[in-house]
Parts: sequence; C-alpha cells; structure tokens
Amino acid sequence: MIITIKKDTPQQEIDKIVRDFEGRGCSVTLIQGANYNVFGIVGDTASIDEKLVAANKYVDNVQRVAAPYKKANRLFHPEDTVVDVGGVKIGGGEKVAVIGGPCSVETQEQILEIARGIKDAGGTLLRGGAYKPRTSPYAFQGLGSEGIRYLVRARQETGLPIVSEIMSIDKVEEFEEYVDLIQVGARNMQNFDLLKVLGKVKKPVLLKRGLSNTMEEWLMAAEYIMSGGNENVILCERGIRTFEKYTRNTLDLSVIPLMKNKSHLPIVIDPSHATGDWRLVESMSLAAIAAGADGLMIEVHNDPEHAWSDGAESLKIDRFRQVIEKGRRIAQVIGRDL
Amino acid sequence: MIITIKKDTPQQEIDKIVRDFEGRGCSVTLIQGANYNVFGIVGDTASIDEKLVAANKYVDNVQRVAAPYKKANRLFHPEDTVVDVGGVKIGGGEKVAVIGGPCSVETQEQILEIARGIKDAGGTLLRGGAYKPRTSPYAFQGLGSEGIRYLVRARQETGLPIVSEIMSIDKVEEFEEYVDLIQVGARNMQNFDLLKVLGKVKKPVLLKRGLSNTMEEWLMAAEYIMSGGNENVILCERGIRTFEKYTRNTLDLSVIPLMKNKSHLPIVIDPSHATGDWRLVESMSLAAIAAGADGLMIEVHNDPEHAWSDGAESLKIDRFRQVIEKGRRIAQVIGRDL
Amino acid sequence: MIITIKKDTPQQEIDKIVRDFEGRGCSVTLIQGANYNVFGIVGDTASIDEKLVAANKYVDNVQRVAAPYKKANRLFHPEDTVVDVGGVKIGGGEKVAVIGGPCSVETQEQILEIARGIKDAGGTLLRGGAYKPRTSPYAFQGLGSEGIRYLVRARQETGLPIVSEIMSIDKVEEFEEYVDLIQVGARNMQNFDLLKVLGKVKKPVLLKRGLSNTMEEWLMAAEYIMSGGNENVILCERGIRTFEKYTRNTLDLSVIPLMKNKSHLPIVIDPSHATGDWRLVESMSLAAIAAGADGLMIEVHNDPEHAWSDGAESLKIDRFRQVIEKGRRIAQVIGRDL
Amino acid sequence: MIITIKKDTPQQEIDKIVRDFEGRGCSVTLIQGANYNVFGIVGDTASIDEKLVAANKYVDNVQRVAAPYKKANRLFHPEDTVVDVGGVKIGGGEKVAVIGGPCSVETQEQILEIARGIKDAGGTLLRGGAYKPRTSPYAFQGLGSEGIRYLVRARQETGLPIVSEIMSIDKVEEFEEYVDLIQVGARNMQNFDLLKVLGKVKKPVLLKRGLSNTMEEWLMAAEYIMSGGNENVILCERGIRTFEKYTRNTLDLSVIPLMKNKSHLPIVIDPSHATGDWRLVESMSLAAIAAGADGLMIEVHNDPEHAWSDGAESLKIDRFRQVIEKGRRIAQVIGRDL
Repeated sequence: MIITIKKDTPQQEIDKIVRDFEGRGCSVTLIQGANYNVFGIVGDTASIDEKLVAANKYVDNVQRVAAPYKKANRLFHPEDTVVDVGGVKIGGGEKVAVIGGPCSVETQEQILEIARGIKDAGGTLLRGGAYKPRTSPYAFQGLGSEGIRYLVRARQETGLPIVSEIMSIDKVEEFEEYVDLIQVGARNMQNFDLLKVLGKVKKPVLLKRGLSNTMEEWLMAAEYIMSGGNENVILCERGIRTFEKYTRNTLDLSVIPLMKNKSHLPIVIDPSHATGDWRLVESMSLAAIAAGADGLMIEVHNDPEHAWSDGAESLKIDRFRQVIEKGRRIAQVIGRDL
Repeated sequence: MIITIKKDTPQQEIDKIVRDFEGRGCSVTLIQGANYNVFGIVGDTASIDEKLVAANKYVDNVQRVAAPYKKANRLFHPEDTVVDVGGVKIGGGEKVAVIGGPCSVETQEQILEIARGIKDAGGTLLRGGAYKPRTSPYAFQGLGSEGIRYLVRARQETGLPIVSEIMSIDKVEEFEEYVDLIQVGARNMQNFDLLKVLGKVKKPVLLKRGLSNTMEEWLMAAEYIMSGGNENVILCERGIRTFEKYTRNTLDLSVIPLMKNKSHLPIVIDPSHATGDWRLVESMSLAAIAAGADGLMIEVHNDPEHAWSDGAESLKIDRFRQVIEKGRRIAQVIGRDL
Repeated sequence: MIITIKKDTPQQEIDKIVRDFEGRGCSVTLIQGANYNVFGIVGDTASIDEKLVAANKYVDNVQRVAAPYKKANRLFHPEDTVVDVGGVKIGGGEKVAVIGGPCSVETQEQILEIARGIKDAGGTLLRGGAYKPRTSPYAFQGLGSEGIRYLVRARQETGLPIVSEIMSIDKVEEFEEYVDLIQVGARNMQNFDLLKVLGKVKKPVLLKRGLSNTMEEWLMAAEYIMSGGNENVILCERGIRTFEKYTRNTLDLSVIPLMKNKSHLPIVIDPSHATGDWRLVESMSLAAIAAGADGLMIEVHNDPEHAWSDGAESLKIDRFRQVIEKGRRIAQVIGRDL
Repeated sequence: MIITIKKDTPQQEIDKIVRDFEGRGCSVTLIQGANYNVFGIVGDTASIDEKLVAANKYVDNVQRVAAPYKKANRLFHPEDTVVDVGGVKIGGGEKVAVIGGPCSVETQEQILEIARGIKDAGGTLLRGGAYKPRTSPYAFQGLGSEGIRYLVRARQETGLPIVSEIMSIDKVEEFEEYVDLIQVGARNMQNFDLLKVLGKVKKPVLLKRGLSNTMEEWLMAAEYIMSGGNENVILCERGIRTFEKYTRNTLDLSVIPLMKNKSHLPIVIDPSHATGDWRLVESMSLAAIAAGADGLMIEVHNDPEHAWSDGAESLKIDRFRQVIEKGRRIAQVIGRDL
C-alpha cells in the first residue's frame, strides 16, 4: 500500500501514522519527494481499509499495490481450476463447454424440445430460468419451483446437467438439491448475503459480472463465495453498460485473457445477454472461443417469436448447431476442442 | 409503442403482427415511409415485452412512447407524495429533511454521541449502518442486530427517527419492528425479491439509485415496491459510476428536477457516498438544496480518522452544523425551509 | 420521425405543428393514445433537427426512425465497399489485411527494421506515427515531416503501403502526397473541419472511433467525409472508455457484425490501443478475425522497452508473426484468408 | 512514481531499472514486499512515460503519485487566477459571471435583440456560435465570419464582451482580432494542434471539458495552452457522457470544489448543453452557484421554437432574468455576488 502525504505534514502526525501501521504488524518505508512524501506499507494490508487511511486530513492519496483477493488469485494458486458440473468439466484449457437453453422455462414440452435440440447439436449443459429478474413488476416473473421441476425432467431425459439462476437466499436449499450449477445474475453480483450463503453450498456457482462492475469487484464477489468454503466458482461475462445504444450492453472479451492472468477460475461468455440481438450471437461466440473462453452460454429457443422473455436474443436450434460446428474448428486452431 | 418494420416485409407477416396486437386489445395505425413502415400501437402496452416484438425478424426497431411505470408516474398522481417517517415529513416542497449519521454503527457510545450532535446541529433523522455491504469479505460487515439496538437507544434519547440499510429478506421483520425508514442500498436496487417483500411492509422505504442504473430503472424499482402496496417510497441519489477517477462516483443532481417532473415521490441526495470525499460534501449539499432536493443524507462521525468504515467521506459535527446553517439560507431563497 | 405530444395540447398548436411539417414536404399521421398523442412524420426527415422540434413546450419526446446517415448506409448501398490502399484491398470479405508498425516513427533505422520484420511476417501495410496526439504537452510529440520521410523510405524498400495519423488541416497536402491511408485518430473523430477537408482528398481515410462515441456518431463522422466526395473510408475500432481499470479501454468487438449490418464500409480492429497491454493483443486479434473483421492494426516494435511511446502495448516481431499464423487459420475457418 | 515489479525478477533486471532511473536524475527507493517488490521513484517524473516503464515484462504496475500538470496546479500557484475578459473579471471568488446567448448566431436582428435582453437582465457576457460543430454534415453549420461580424456589432451596441467557439487553426487570427473569449468546444478539448496555437494568442480561452474526459485530462489540455504562454484559461463543465437517457449528458457539479482544490483556474458551468432541456436549466444554474462556480454559460434565445439549433435547451429572456435574480440571492448566501 502506497500512501502519499502532504509535504507540510507535522512530524508528530507522520510518527502517528507510522506507529499506527507498525502496530498492525506492517513495516513502513518513507520516501521523501519534492512536493510529497510517500509511505510504502508492507505486510498484510488486505485488511486495511483505504478509506480510513484517506480520512486523515494530511493524506493526499492511497493506492493499493497488492490485489485485494486471495483465494481467487492465480499468484497463490497457479494451476487452472477445473469445475465439475454434474460430470461436465469446465476450465483447464481443453474442452470448451456450451451451455444452451431458453431465457425462461415456459412449459414441460418447451424445455424438453429445446433440451433435445441442444443435446443433439452438441451442447453440453442446459440452462433455463425459473426465477426471473425482470425490470418491470408487470412482466412474467418465471414459473418458480415448477420451472425447476421441468428442468429436472429434461435432465433425466437428456443427461444434460442443468443451470438456473437463484435470486434469493430462501431458495438455496431447492437449488442445492436440484440444480447442477447455480447461477448468480448480474444484478445480484454484489448481493453479499446471497454470496455468503452460496459459500456454504456443495454445488458450483456461475457468477455473472455486474452491469457496471470492474473485474476487481467481480473477483472480490468470487472471493466472498470462496472464502466461505465453496471454491467451485465459474466467472461469466455478459456485457457491461456503456453509452452505446445499438447493443443492449457492450461485451468485454478482454476479460478472457485478463482473468486467465489474474485468476485460476474458469471463464464463460454469454453473448446473448451481452448483445440482446440474435444476429450478433454467432460472431461473438466464435470470437469468444478464439480469445480462449472456457465456455459459452447461449440462449436457444424453439420459437423465439413467441418466447415469454428475451426472444430477440435467442437462437433457433439450427443456428445453435452452426455456432457449435464453426466454434469447434476455431477451438482446434488454438489447441482446444469443443 | 412504435414498431419499425422492414420495407420488404411480406403482407401476410404485416397482417399477422396487426392481428397479434389487436388480439391484445390494442389499436394499430400503419404509417408508410420511403424505406420503412411504422406501426403505432395504442392501448395497454405496459404489459407488452419489447424484446419479444423485436424477436420477429422483420422488425427493425421497437420504441416505447408511454413510460412503463404507473404508480410512480406523476401523470397519474399529480400531487407530491409526502412521506411520514416517524413524524418527520419528507417531500411536498416545504421543509428539507437532513439525515445524518455514521456509515457504520460501532458502539453504543459512538452512536449516542453522534446522535446528540446531529440533533443539536438541527438534523432531523439519524442514519447508521448495522448490516454493511462491503466489497471485500475481509472487511467489517457491521454489528447486525446489536447495531439496530444501539440505534433504537439513540432514538429513545434524542427523538430522531432512525434509518438503516436492509440487505436481505430474512431481516425484514426486524427492520419493520425497529427501523423508521428502511434503506435499500445501491447494490440491491434491482434485488427484486427484496423489493417485493418491502412492498408488503408498513414502514417507508428509502430507495437508492443503483451504481449504473438509469432513472427509468430506478422508477421501475420503486414501482416494484409500490405495486406491492407500499406507496411510501423516497428516492435517494448517491452518485453513478463513470470513468472519472478523482471522485468515487459522479453525483447526478439533474435527477432532482427530472424526478420532480416524472414522478411525485420525494427525492433525497447523498453527497457523501457520491463523492467519497468529505471536502466535497458541503458544496454538493448546498447545490442539492438549491436544485430543490427534499432532503440530504450526510455521513457524520465524531472521529472520522478512527471510523470502522468510510471515514474519508464523513463530516465532523461542526462541519455538519455549518452545512445546515448555510443550507437553511439557501432553502429560503427558493421558498423552502430546513 | 415520431413525435409525442402532451394530451392537453390545444388544437391550434397541433394544427401548427402539422402545417409546419407539411410545409417541409413531409406527410403527417396522427395516432391518438390514452395519455399521449403521437405524430408519425414521413419524408425527408434527415434535415429536421430533433432538438428544435423538442423545443416546443407541448412536445414530450422526439424519436428518429430512419438512420441519419445515407452515404454510409448499407440500405442504399448493399454491396461491401472495397478500399484500395496502395494496391492492398481492404473490405469485401476475402483477405484480412494486417497493418503493423510502431506507435511513433523514431529513426530511419528503427522504421526500416520494423518494416522488414512486418513484411517478412506477412503483414500487408506499415503504420507509424509522425504527428502524435499526446495527453501531455511535455511528452514526445512525434518527428513530424521527418517521420513521414522515413516512412516513405520504408515503403520504397519493402513495398508496404503506409498509414499515418493526421492531426491538423495544415498537413493535408503533405499527407495526400506521401501517405497511402490517412488515419484520423479517436480524439479527432469529431474534428469536423478536418473531416470536411478529408472529404476532398484523393487518398482513403482510416477513421477511428472516438473514445466515447456511439456507432451512430461514428457513421455520421464517416458521412462527413463521404458527403464531401471521398467515399473511401475504413472504420477502425480502438476501444471505448468505460469504468474498467484493468484495461486502457474496452474493446467493443460487437461493432464488427453491427457495422456490417448497418454499413458497407470495411472495419478494422486495433487491439493494441484498445487494451494498452501487449499480453492481450494476440487473443483479441484472433477474436477480431473470428468475428469477421476486415483487418487488424497492431503495434509492433523492435525494442518495446526503449520505444519512445506506447511500448507497453507493442508486440515484438516474433509475436506478431505468431498472431498472423494463428489468425490465418482462424480466417480460413470462417471462409476468408489472411 | 511507484513501480511494482514481480517477485521473481532477476537481480540484474532490477539493477538495470534502478540505473535507468538514476540516469535520469531520479532517486530510487526499493521496498521489499511478500509477493511484490516496489520502487519509489523521486525526481522530475513528469517527463517519464508510464507506458514505457510498463513495457518491461517484469513490471506489474506503474502508478503516478505527483500530478502531471504544473502550470495549472494550485500547488505551485496558490492564489486564484482572475481572467479579464474585455473588462469583465472571471474567477477570484467575488462576482459570478453570467454568459448568455444563442447556440447559433442567426441574423443581425436576432443577436441584437438577444444581446439587449441579456444586458437588461443582468448578464455580463454574450455568447453566440458562428462556427458550429454539428454531428450531421446535413445540419446548419453556422454563419461563419458573418456571424462573428454580427456579434461584434452586438458588442458595440451593448458593451457586452463576446464569446464564440473556434473549431480550426485557420480561424485563429479572426478570433484573436474580434472575439473577447475564445471557446474550445468539448469535441476539440484534445485537438492538441489547436491548443498549441491558442497557447500563443493574446485572448483568454474558455476550455470545455470533453464528453468523456477525466478532470486530469482536462487539466492537461489547459496545460497545453498554458505551457505555450497563454495562462488565461477558464475551465467550463458541460456534462459528461453516461448511460442515462433522460438527459443529454450528466452535469458533474463536483468538478467545482475539486477543480478549486487542484487548480487555480476559474470554473464556469454550462447547464444548457449538459442537460439539453431548458426545464432543467434554472435548477442546475442555482445548484452551480451554490457549489461555488465562478460563472454560468446559459443558452438564451428570443424564439427557441424557431431557433436554428439547440432550441430545446434555450431559455427565453424572462426565464433567464429569473435565474439571475434567484442566483444572485444564492451567491450572497455563500459570500459572493452576481
């Protein structure tokens, strides 16, 4: 941690700050500059709150050198984490996983038909929303437990592990029992109470990046889950909010090489939510694979024009199959498979 | 709702779209342009999902004309809503309310001392965090129920109604019993399950704007609470995320006149969280009052340099008193009081 | 154009608005809604200024249906534009062009050595900055005309057409005479006087997207050049500004399929400036090719650690060669070559 | 400057880096941490390019401690700069200046009528655009020199100094001769060639903040002008680009106290361009004054509904007068006048 203090800080204040840090077991180096003095603080600074240091009126600036995340940090865990989701491995640089399915589970028939299509096209996991975060209270809110039951039935028939989004701590038991990969949506990425509870469950968690969260905050959200004991976290990029109006969000594919550098956790890309437009899904999927993603999460619907939510971003099965076929050949170019 | 369709759309597709909307009780007007055709849809379009309409491959664009919020809309509720918080009225254009207090409740003595200072300086409500949303799992997470008890004791002594942040649905009973104004933080603005539960409680809700949420999404979050039956919602702006690095967030004061135009709900400004820097709090507080805010929410601490969280943005009591004194004179210029 | 007016607008005001539009040769359709009335305006609305319409106090909202760009619009020019840059074709879906070179031209030897490396690795154009837009007036501002001369010499030796950035209208003659592809940098994307002059030159223009400009504004900047008579415009994405701190900018690859849909102009991706980090350049280059980019623009330096600007984002020749080799195989998967 | 290097950096590389900085006359302090080593570099680091340091593959991170601007820095120039614009003083904490006028000069009569209104209402300077930066090449581009002549005539009659926007270096002579305060628009804030030329002129410059520029970049743009010799720079905030759709831009009033802290230059607020909506101008103007702005820049038009540009954001004279009257009383509360 680097602390810049004003040049005219009284010596007794400087001494106080030094003593304060030394009292926390840190060692302090002072660098005298022309207009500022700088302290370098070495030791366990993760538990020191920058904002409290900054509250001192002589302090001009506080900068952190070491990353605030530990469990998620590749520095302390150099090998890739490989997460086992109902028998499908995600991460580790070999197979690219493909999660497909509708935004919302609508009926038993719908989810069965889509699941069969995904299985047949070469998809490896089935997604479907049972509890839906909708901007409007007047929009369809999901089938709830009934939707989960339909997904379970689709898993029984196709063998595809299932992924679904949790929105509230009172459903954790249901998800732990029935769902193979518990998704935390963008809007709940910093629902810390939910993250804490998920740190105690036995099932892996797919953690979506928040609409305007930095990569560091995202890793800190993963850290919440991991520090609770559940180290099976998969990161999922789904676009960030910008001023651009032609797309719903801006898909940030640079997270793939960056997260591989900063962390050992697998990373999955969701081009459907990111763009909000099915016409952009294929090219963004291929780009994600070329950039080294560990998986894709794609919205697939048998009848997008009559879907109950997010039809505009869903692929039909035929296009989904085409993405998988081209994607496999791209994966092979970079030494992977799909 | 305005739907732009491609010029080469087959007539049978056009007929299908028209029948579809008429089947929902809407009336449809077709406008033929040179390169596009446009449908104007009139009727109860709030329940129509734009994304489903956009899923039709002949549709180029869907734009909403009417606002998607109803209960929060000034069009249908022209008078200002005045919310009664433990006897203090917020909204309605007369008194500007001033909520002060520490980021975190730390000890009984701390909160009592601060509460007395706030009361004495002319503040009207006491805030204090008992459950804290912290980016890091290793940071202080708040005193929990003990913090709520300390606040209750401070209310008993000073008479100031208390405001505290709720983070999880399993604490709703506790908040409904003990807290006068239940705060929903920026990170939970779209925690829809929490909003739904708060739609059923008897206490008013202070709804902070999310870090990168639009005003429309914010009003839709209010709509979640109001459509559940609880119409006592106060909006609170606390800064939005931008690329600027000199401030924590960018305080958007234009929300004040805009929200007064779009909605009848009271609006409160939090300059402390918005800027993250106590040196900016006074000027931003005076600006908020000049712009017509119904209230301020200011972090106040008796000893910011040793605070347990967010010391950098807290005012000491003397500065808080000064903000109130200048703020009162500004309020009088625009025909209000404080 | 869709104009929403308030329900209580007096009939004479409505009549005035209708007459006003009809006077401009537009036809007007009125749609009566429950809470609003809506006018649909058909005709040549590109020359109507939304802001003036919005100045009418009865007008609630103005939305444009037709795109404001014409020359750049694929609707009126369905075939891909292929730009000839000193014999190298960019656009049209076959070959992916690769522009390589240093941020700044430093010495004749440096640019010759890099040019030979690029040629040898399979690159097709040479870039190099002679006039540099630097945030600080105290930073190296480029060699100016001397740099252009060094580039010309490198072209003579290697045959690679040269690309360089123009910053001011008083250099247009120099660029028109010596440079094969005139680059407009992100900071000058809306330097309209420069764009107008470039509309009159005979050389093609590489137009970078501004730091926080929308795709529509970018197309309008292209329209400035094209409406002047120069239709040889190549779009170049170089990252947009977001709140993310781990990368310099956020590379928006969704522009590739979107721009191919909205426009006929070629699109090139610059992963070096976008990320600011050479470690991300390879994966972002491969992603761009997989997404369908018509070209790449990559910073290459023989000695990045002693470069005079932007060393952190430059590849050495060996890595550049590797990008080209993998890139070629990815291009082949999607039916192109490189 | 703080440089973080990887723990496993070979000693010879460390020695090389140290020698490199010492060769530039800097002194280097090494701080050994558990996972990183950190160098503190003291000396004239303003001329060192962070990106070159970051190009070293052992370097993990480079952070600047000292501000990169000098002439604009309050640290080296503690007293407020007061700029004299044709006899009107801007800056220094006493009078708040009010610049009013139309977006575009349209006719001699129009600008005379508006100028008289502004004078009569108590405004102190007249603005009017003669050269207009328009997003569309098909929109009105301004009257050019004719517009400047009309402004000069309005100055002769009313005595109000005139402000107008320059867009190109080939007009600098005209502006230096006729205009009292030369405005650099948001889109040209980083048109470095223009800034350099303005560093040589004798007239003061009003420098608007770019659409998505940070405050530091804004100060660096001022530094370009000041380092050329022209220290009469006035900063003007006009809103930054965010994701919000209800306003054109987001007005960032926190720049007022921040810029007063970081710099000695005067700061003026333009609420008209920031919001794009005349209904928000009064409240944002009062807020700006309460926050300590040195001036306001407000669009005023005699007939906004028939303006040739930006009518939606223009006030009529009566409302402008009302802003001045309320604004004066707010200014008095904070010890200033208007």
